[in-house]
Amino acid sequence: MDKSLCAELIRSRLDSEASGSRTQTAFCLAIRRLILDGELPPGSPLPPTRMLTNELGLSRSTLVRAYEQLRLEGYLQSRGGSATLVSEALSFTAPSNAPRGRPWRHGRPLSRRGAEIAQHATSSPIQSGAFVPGVPDVRLFPFATWRRLLSKYVCFEHRQLARYGHGGYGPLKAVLAEYLRVSRMMSCSPRQILILNGSHQAIDLCARMLCDEKDRVWMEDPGYWGASNVLRANGLHIEPIPADDQGMSLPADPESPPRMIFVSPSSQYPTGVVMSLNRRIKLLELAEAHESWVIEDDYDNEIRYHPYTIGSLFSQARSQRVIYLGTFSKTMFPGLRLAYLVVPEDLAESFAIGNAELYREGRLIEQAALAEFIDAGYLSAHLRRMRNIYQERRNVLRRAIESRLGDLVSTTGGLAGLHLPYFFNQPFDDVALSEEMLEAGIVLRPLSMYYADAGHCRSGMVLGFAAVDAKTIESASDQLCTVVERRRQRDQEPLPARPGQQ
Amino acid sequence: MDKSLCAELIRSRLDSEASGSRTQTAFCLAIRRLILDGELPPGSPLPPTRMLTNELGLSRSTLVRAYEQLRLEGYLQSRGGSATLVSEALSFTAPSNAPRGRPWRHGRPLSRRGAEIAQHATSSPIQSGAFVPGVPDVRLFPFATWRRLLSKYVCFEHRQLARYGHGGYGPLKAVLAEYLRVSRMMSCSPRQILILNGSHQAIDLCARMLCDEKDRVWMEDPGYWGASNVLRANGLHIEPIPADDQGMSLPADPESPPRMIFVSPSSQYPTGVVMSLNRRIKLLELAEAHESWVIEDDYDNEIRYHPYTIGSLFSQARSQRVIYLGTFSKTMFPGLRLAYLVVPEDLAESFAIGNAELYREGRLIEQAALAEFIDAGYLSAHLRRMRNIYQERRNVLRRAIESRLGDLVSTTGGLAGLHLPYFFNQPFDDVALSEEMLEAGIVLRPLSMYYADAGHCRSGMVLGFAAVDAKTIESASDQLCTVVERRRQRDQEPLPARPGQQ
Repeated sequence: MDKSLCAELIRSRLDSEASGSRTQTAFCLAIRRLILDGELPPGSPLPPTRMLTNELGLSRSTLVRAYEQLRLEGYLQSRGGSATLVSEALSFTAPSNAPRGRPWRHGRPLSRRGAEIAQHATSSPIQSGAFVPGVPDVRLFPFATWRRLLSKYVCFEHRQLARYGHGGYGPLKAVLAEYLRVSRMMSCSPRQILILNGSHQAIDLCARMLCDEKDRVWMEDPGYWGASNVLRANGLHIEPIPADDQGMSLPADPESPPRMIFVSPSSQYPTGVVMSLNRRIKLLELAEAHESWVIEDDYDNEIRYHPYTIGSLFSQARSQRVIYLGTFSKTMFPGLRLAYLVVPEDLAESFAIGNAELYREGRLIEQAALAEFIDAGYLSAHLRRMRNIYQERRNVLRRAIESRLGDLVSTTGGLAGLHLPYFFNQPFDDVALSEEMLEAGIVLRPLSMYYADAGHCRSGMVLGFAAVDAKTIESASDQLCTVVERRRQRDQEPLPARPGQQ
Repeated sequence: MDKSLCAELIRSRLDSEASGSRTQTAFCLAIRRLILDGELPPGSPLPPTRMLTNELGLSRSTLVRAYEQLRLEGYLQSRGGSATLVSEALSFTAPSNAPRGRPWRHGRPLSRRGAEIAQHATSSPIQSGAFVPGVPDVRLFPFATWRRLLSKYVCFEHRQLARYGHGGYGPLKAVLAEYLRVSRMMSCSPRQILILNGSHQAIDLCARMLCDEKDRVWMEDPGYWGASNVLRANGLHIEPIPADDQGMSLPADPESPPRMIFVSPSSQYPTGVVMSLNRRIKLLELAEAHESWVIEDDYDNEIRYHPYTIGSLFSQARSQRVIYLGTFSKTMFPGLRLAYLVVPEDLAESFAIGNAELYREGRLIEQAALAEFIDAGYLSAHLRRMRNIYQERRNVLRRAIESRLGDLVSTTGGLAGLHLPYFFNQPFDDVALSEEMLEAGIVLRPLSMYYADAGHCRSGMVLGFAAVDAKTIESASDQLCTVVERRRQRDQEPLPARPGQQ
């Protein structure tokens, strides 16, 4: 190719791809693209820098550096004195004429499990407002204290905390063991505790360390879909087990026992039911008999509205079949992304290794700040304050809903946590209701969507009350009740004589 | 059971299990344990609180609260006026006589994949010292700046950053897109960027979204074992592909092409080789022809000791088959646990959904601080400084090793990164060497351990030089050389006439 033609080609490529920008980077990109697209074939001579200076208005030194860069990357080679060529050694199998950036057309871009994850996606991009469940009021978090503690550990003196952190921050685990002893009557050693980046990662670790592809997991139905999605992504087969007013209703004599059982005994999600003692005993007996693993998701026990602690399943278990899962997303703030597992002694080492291998650990600065936050009593003080505030919001919500919807709804929750579940006592399209509310800017999760098994699915509403103040809860509740009443009248369904199950 | 006998039983249980501690919690635990162990069967009357006050020295009000707690949990029930019984409704299938805390004996506690993860574990608990590879010098990190930026975003005004963070922090993604444009000649939109908790999570996400169980992945051999472990944990079948002095040596016409190819083209890990342009072209052609996904691990390109940027594979690709993986573990500090993926446009949405579903996002406070850290030029300034410091340490190491071991060793690295790889040019037991060094408190990774295929495995040393100062590098190198020389003499192997491959 004639050298001035080549210069012309470079100029037009610069104009079309870099919008006329004249920098070393843009020049390099243009040359690379011309070579990779086959427009400057191997062995083509490039214009001398002197010529390009005139053509492109780039300085000679910039061009010299650019040629050097392209030589180093293998695009260009020198020959003789100053002649520069496209590398003769370059070999293209078949210069494709396909337009650049052509997306795949034939194969499936995602894997089967990837497609399933994307398809089952349920997490909402809206995570604030009146009825978003499971989200605490981050406005009331003591940021000044947290900032002070973080700052204390972000410094040269604590530089070792900036490294990879094998096994988590020891003092945090010690503080947690003590915290669990006092608040959950649990007896465990710091060695049994693993710090993780949120509950999902904790569930993921359990699924991988304890279950293989196609293993069966029992989950409460209705239940926490986030956990289902993580377990399903690990190739597990989920069997929904109905949860009633005593919690997970275990089959009398299961034909094929599960490898894992995922439960929220302190406050069933989303119904808020406390698992009865008989069910707990049965669950533990079953797990022991069949060597099933029990994951106890204790996501919001700290936020309770009665003076008594419901003992954790972990503390009740005679055997070592229970793994306890706690989180700071509700008690601190969700963006912290810190949760923890308490595993049986005999699993402690494998789990610690698995955690390091799979995720690599670190974040010791945050863990050190958290250890002090708990140890100095800031967490307890924050929880005491929040319990009162949340209780008031719960009361406002309950009053607003029950005074207007009366017999139409009933609840099983309210003892603890950040949401109230309401069942409709007569047929009611909760999905359509949720869609109508979303148009008004209010996130309302239909209860029916928490069910995996359509056979015993009930309609209702999962109403978060914690993220906003009582006034907002009240006005949003009024809006909601108005919509519910209007929809009920439109449906022209008479109320049943007495409330009953749908 | 006689009530005073029962009181006696409670007292002895308190003494044996709570070391005589007399608190409400200890009392509750003792009663629960007696019931669960079958020593207080359903229907047994409990001593009145008055009697226990005398027996145990616990106050009446404490005992009343404890009974109330146990009633709420379902262990006890009231009958008549003040009589308290063990709940008559409790049902045990078969009161087990097995000692408490008995670990499983029969089944396998871990899953097949869990056992494999634990077995293949390679991450070292020691992550500091002379020759630990891949670890930057955290002592030189500008903590004061980082603290100031973090503090700026940990406050009420930025409270929205404390929430769940769907899709990552927008401004960070915008800053990163610009950073990649300048530093890696990459053209991508912020939408294509995902923020993750470290490279391992990023690899995990790719494996799940793009590959199914038993899919085949090509990996460079030698290569990054951490990535292999994550991929294997996802059920993928890893095929080691030899890497030579041009990088991954791709088979001419693969019989069965892989679903995914994991490469480090800018600086092959651990050999430091820059993948040749022809190999890059071939790799991209192969990926396009077979619709394979390429993961480009660009873990340390920012720390380079020559003035030119080796273009990323992502920027070279005509098609959308390359996923770019970057990390802040080397440029900032490992404990930060922040990395990112740049994915093709068409994958952006599914990956964002997968990320939210599988891991739940947050940590926006750190992301906001990082965005400002990059945007205000602190990262570039830190990198400029560290490049000079690391270069000196690399030179010290190189001089120390090559002046004493001469023809015994050769290297392919040194252009970039935080470690130097050295091959032994004659048979040498690098594992035994590493063990001897570890006894002297020095972590030395044997090169042979980076190989998956014993067939072309070579012995050598992977020497990190970044985590400690030049003086320490020098003395540790002297120690190392002395040990190597002694071992060589002991082996009585004469040096070959000229250096060659083992």
